[in-house]
Amino acid sequence: MPTKISAYAAQSAKSPVAPFSIERREPGPNDVQLDILFCGVCHSDLHTARNEWQNTTYPVVPGHEIVGRVTKVGKDVTKFKVGDLAGVGCLVDSCGTCASCKEGLQQYCEVEFIGTYNSPDKHLGGMTFGGYSKQIVVRQEFVLRIPANLDPAAVAPLLCAGITTYSPLRHWNVGKGMKVGIVGLGGLGHMGVKLAHAFGAHVALFTTSPNKKEDALRLGANEIILSKDQAEMDKHINSFDFILDTVSAPHNPSAYLNLLKRDATMCLVGAPEVDLPVTPFSLVFKRRSFAASLIGGIPETQEMLDFCGKHNIVSDIEMISIQKINEAYERMLKSDVKYRFVIDMASLK
Amino acid sequence: MPTKISAYAAQSAKSPVAPFSIERREPGPNDVQLDILFCGVCHSDLHTARNEWQNTTYPVVPGHEIVGRVTKVGKDVTKFKVGDLAGVGCLVDSCGTCASCKEGLQQYCEVEFIGTYNSPDKHLGGMTFGGYSKQIVVRQEFVLRIPANLDPAAVAPLLCAGITTYSPLRHWNVGKGMKVGIVGLGGLGHMGVKLAHAFGAHVALFTTSPNKKEDALRLGANEIILSKDQAEMDKHINSFDFILDTVSAPHNPSAYLNLLKRDATMCLVGAPEVDLPVTPFSLVFKRRSFAASLIGGIPETQEMLDFCGKHNIVSDIEMISIQKINEAYERMLKSDVKYRFVIDMASLK
Repeated sequence: MPTKISAYAAQSAKSPVAPFSIERREPGPNDVQLDILFCGVCHSDLHTARNEWQNTTYPVVPGHEIVGRVTKVGKDVTKFKVGDLAGVGCLVDSCGTCASCKEGLQQYCEVEFIGTYNSPDKHLGGMTFGGYSKQIVVRQEFVLRIPANLDPAAVAPLLCAGITTYSPLRHWNVGKGMKVGIVGLGGLGHMGVKLAHAFGAHVALFTTSPNKKEDALRLGANEIILSKDQAEMDKHINSFDFILDTVSAPHNPSAYLNLLKRDATMCLVGAPEVDLPVTPFSLVFKRRSFAASLIGGIPETQEMLDFCGKHNIVSDIEMISIQKINEAYERMLKSDVKYRFVIDMASLK
Repeated sequence: MPTKISAYAAQSAKSPVAPFSIERREPGPNDVQLDILFCGVCHSDLHTARNEWQNTTYPVVPGHEIVGRVTKVGKDVTKFKVGDLAGVGCLVDSCGTCASCKEGLQQYCEVEFIGTYNSPDKHLGGMTFGGYSKQIVVRQEFVLRIPANLDPAAVAPLLCAGITTYSPLRHWNVGKGMKVGIVGLGGLGHMGVKLAHAFGAHVALFTTSPNKKEDALRLGANEIILSKDQAEMDKHINSFDFILDTVSAPHNPSAYLNLLKRDATMCLVGAPEVDLPVTPFSLVFKRRSFAASLIGGIPETQEMLDFCGKHNIVSDIEMISIQKINEAYERMLKSDVKYRFVIDMASLK
């Protein structure tokens, strides 16, 4: 029998996120049931609540940066026991049999990955509901172990913002002796700075705000570059080994592409809903690449969490009650958050 | 003493290419002097003659697909002797000391490569003059050996169209078992089809014209895909290992990016003068890359010529007299050439 639980949902693109009641399935033999303690607030939550990607089915319960306590496990569950701290990120299922799934790259599943929210729910019908809720039930393969030494509230954003930046930095082999740029200092960007620094790179933060300098250096940047100052940008032509572009607003990537060395890549992890204009000459004269990357697979997400445990890395967060979620969205749109909102789910009665 | 020779030059963006007299330097100890037999007509010639890249210094003598006969060599020249057939491509010099030059990638010289035309001429002052002329003098390191078994007129376009497509196909390891797309069937595209076929790939030509099918198959394509037929395009989603985009007109690369497999690259070798709109989601969902590549270095150009000699590959050409050059430009703009014009330089009195 499914259980009725409390949640917060958007009922339409125009309505606020508000109290709602949803059902969760009874855990099957391979399922883990969590009481949700904390849920990070990702820009995708807002995009989806407001149907900005034109793919939302209402009602929608956002939230895919989930940390909780295990309250029940199915009889075949070996990875977790009741009382464990555990995490759920952007994915709760995938085909499991395609080439990408077999490589542990479930985010690139060639059939269809099941997102934590707004994806078809094959158990109860309808759509999956995310972490703005009391409880969630997920098959054990998609549940992550949380390092015991980290603040669990500040771990929540690692499940999306952390892995989204970790995965491309790893894929393009960022490490010692490399000069790496991070474009933008928001939820993704501040994780990019922390992680690239932890990997041993020389980190430059591109920003439009000179007043972000102190914070950027504190987070691990070696320098900041004001992207609106062309003379300053020109000093860095042909010098970057890799650039991570975390900007989700419309922008022109070519100003940054020109700063890459020959054969180097700039990878986009923001998800602007509009086309980005790329100047052919910014690529052709140095055989540069413009790429993009999507979150990360389950094995790499666990690797990232373990890495963060070892290096004491968490997100910088501002805790809110679930009642403040709509206000948090508005502040997020003004970049008025350092650097990720996390909902204290104890506030959801 | 410099020698006066006949050439064809454009005197302004609006004037036709017309008879003109230029000087060539007396060969120095390391120089090779060629009598030009054939010169291919590249789209860059037209772009430059008409100042479409806003970087032309007039008068300009275009032409960088040059095949000629050696008529004089300096005392230190070991690679060539009088009477040899030899070629000159897009480059006649580079710094020789930067990391790219040391790797033989002179086209990415970090100081400045010297183009065969419209680059500063450090010997005579002014600008370098290209192959629409009787004679050229080039340092031996930038002169190529021409395989004896090939038609020298049809070899000329290999010096730009050939190497421009060969280099990215090699760089991204195109070979047996791979499905490779070539976008566009012009001067570059027809070489892309021939070379990708010779490397053992399954080759699909993307075109807007169903009537190009027969020719595409003759050149080595295994199939053609009509890029305006969305249902046909959709059949190929996530299936390409590599796509070479040879289109130099404004276009949207995202329609092709969506057809790449995870982690695959589409490389642009056309040089549109406008920004190209890239849809972020066409990259992000499969970690795809959009790259671009510039001609090739001298060692790779020689490797390409040797490969073409071994596999009997040349360009499909239409021979013209130099007097027909302006007409050829107009026909090129209408894609009315199969597939490269080559000037018979005997026509230049």
